[in-house]
Amino acid sequence: MPTYASTTRTQVAVVGGGPAGLMLSHLLHVAGIDSVVVDNRTVHTIETTHRAGILERDSVRLLTDTGVSDRVLRDGDRHGGIYLRFDGTSHHVDFEALVGASVWLYPQTDVFTDLHRARVRDGGDVRFGIADTEVEGVLDAPRITYADEGGRRHEVSADLVVGCDGSRSTCRGLVEGGRQFFREYPFAWFGILCEAPKSAPELIYARSDRGFALISQRTDEVQRMYFQCDPSEDPSTWSDDRIWTELQARLAGEDGFRLHEGPVIERTVLPFRSFVQTPMRHGRLLLAGDAAHTVPPTGAKGLNLALADVRVLAEVLEQAIGKQDHDVLDTYTERALERVWKAQHFSYWMTTMLHRSADSSDFDERRQLGELHALVASQRGSAYLAEGYTGWPQD
Amino acid sequence: MPTYASTTRTQVAVVGGGPAGLMLSHLLHVAGIDSVVVDNRTVHTIETTHRAGILERDSVRLLTDTGVSDRVLRDGDRHGGIYLRFDGTSHHVDFEALVGASVWLYPQTDVFTDLHRARVRDGGDVRFGIADTEVEGVLDAPRITYADEGGRRHEVSADLVVGCDGSRSTCRGLVEGGRQFFREYPFAWFGILCEAPKSAPELIYARSDRGFALISQRTDEVQRMYFQCDPSEDPSTWSDDRIWTELQARLAGEDGFRLHEGPVIERTVLPFRSFVQTPMRHGRLLLAGDAAHTVPPTGAKGLNLALADVRVLAEVLEQAIGKQDHDVLDTYTERALERVWKAQHFSYWMTTMLHRSADSSDFDERRQLGELHALVASQRGSAYLAEGYTGWPQD
Repeated sequence: MPTYASTTRTQVAVVGGGPAGLMLSHLLHVAGIDSVVVDNRTVHTIETTHRAGILERDSVRLLTDTGVSDRVLRDGDRHGGIYLRFDGTSHHVDFEALVGASVWLYPQTDVFTDLHRARVRDGGDVRFGIADTEVEGVLDAPRITYADEGGRRHEVSADLVVGCDGSRSTCRGLVEGGRQFFREYPFAWFGILCEAPKSAPELIYARSDRGFALISQRTDEVQRMYFQCDPSEDPSTWSDDRIWTELQARLAGEDGFRLHEGPVIERTVLPFRSFVQTPMRHGRLLLAGDAAHTVPPTGAKGLNLALADVRVLAEVLEQAIGKQDHDVLDTYTERALERVWKAQHFSYWMTTMLHRSADSSDFDERRQLGELHALVASQRGSAYLAEGYTGWPQD
Repeated sequence: MPTYASTTRTQVAVVGGGPAGLMLSHLLHVAGIDSVVVDNRTVHTIETTHRAGILERDSVRLLTDTGVSDRVLRDGDRHGGIYLRFDGTSHHVDFEALVGASVWLYPQTDVFTDLHRARVRDGGDVRFGIADTEVEGVLDAPRITYADEGGRRHEVSADLVVGCDGSRSTCRGLVEGGRQFFREYPFAWFGILCEAPKSAPELIYARSDRGFALISQRTDEVQRMYFQCDPSEDPSTWSDDRIWTELQARLAGEDGFRLHEGPVIERTVLPFRSFVQTPMRHGRLLLAGDAAHTVPPTGAKGLNLALADVRVLAEVLEQAIGKQDHDVLDTYTERALERVWKAQHFSYWMTTMLHRSADSSDFDERRQLGELHALVASQRGSAYLAEGYTGWPQD
């Protein structure tokens, strides 16, 4: 029996202190349930790793209505729609007019900062920068052990343990007898951060014969843009000039639209795949967010799905702990996956509607344009897209 | 110079006396323009070849409002929706409630009969059962020649010639310098006619792990059903028992739904492909309907597209002939193809949403179910489907 530098007893141990883990910990706190969150990354690493940037309406509500922060409403940019651009023309999809909802441009790093501050404000037990995390006893007596910066091992024992440890989740490996659904896409996204003014007030999703491009924003001075590329692309071989030439070509049109250019300060290739784990529960272990599912970035669903997961999970945990009845845990997977599969389809739809596939025929290209023309010409089709993009109502 | 048993001079010569050719001839007659229609099939052959059965709202209006016949309103069955069936449960898509429109179940053979009677009633020149049709002079002086039953050749010369001669069109071969867009699908439909009572009041589009099935109707005594099969399937090797076992399995569900069975009186394998010819004009030759485009049968769009084509074409021909200005003929392709590409996408969407592909992964299967669940749960998504199925408003 090893000796631990500390031993903590809590109700819910959470592996992973990203938005999913911290939001769950916050919601449990609101419900009067103790938790401990551990993450092997430092706060600085998480705060400087650029990720998603679009929050659905209900994700914003979750932040503001549960008392995390209303900073998103002040510092975030409300976007009342997106542009679909094809055949050299931009078409505005007006979410506000179509479905009475908006999304917010608010980077995931800011969501993390808000959640981290709220947990510290409320005396939450969140432990970053640890190492060698191990999870044991998920069937009867869950226990997390880890090493601190000095190498000393600590122990957290809990009634239940939740894996919010992202797409390379180790918790997921502890689920026995489940199934995994997987899809590779034959392309990736080349993502940049650049120092330039905004090129558009809202996101532009552009389909061109050269492939997809997405024009996004961050601040008045820094912008985020992406273009479809080969998964094996090496971003370091791309000069600023080459990047801007490619982006301009994909946005070009008879309307003379031009992107505002500027120094490229970050360039990365983002993987592109779909993944679903089922069940999301094994004994006293539960999974949430990227640990259980990954979506391609086209529909901006990843962070929002993670927040939707923990909203459902907090309810389920409250019932399980309050009534000492673990049977309710069985309902979590089905409730969460209903939304996950909708989002998987939505992401697939947005992806296939806008990306160029190497093996697509001339017919496929024209049919794709036929879909885009039909969609923007149809108030009902546009509303269906708007509903999915701004987020299906949470039950 | 050969001698002809007869020579006829007309304004528009139409090759093909199916619904497209006869409707065009009728619309031209209403506009005071003469035409001659020739077809190498007999009236009996056309009236006994089973084809499509669903008319969009505007197709019905075209028949009734232009004075062809209002028999469709009396003898046709108005369908206010369809059923989407998956995971063993049927979901009604209520077109009337969603978009205020219906479709009519009214076989193409009846559409033909109505149009044929109207042309005879109005003294139209329609010539069936001819042979060895040849079209010449499409750039300057169009001329059709053909042989009658006795082998004597006849000549019809015209200002313009229209090819409504179906998917194996010979007129299409006269368009020089155009492009053809083509897509094969890795499956076909096994179609039956059977003597049995109706199994449902409206069409059932069923997705199952065994593949797609469609339950349709004809009369109170005879029904039309289809199931997805391999393109190389030999229908003659299928016994009635085997057909019913397959159909029942694809419709099975926890609700205990069972098809009414009966003797199978016809069995055929329907090809499944998408095709678009552009332009649809070359000199004084124009194409309409299947001669210019083919859609897979899933969205019931083929006959409706043909009728939409000739509605536009009749307008264009009226302007071209009335003003002696052939430049207006250039507008036809773009006007017609806008709808054609929408319909190509709609047919592709209905097809891929409901059919099983041999190379689809477990992920793809679940995503497909995710789409169906999202669609029926969304009033907006269901309305988008309803809008496409009942037909986009004609300009």
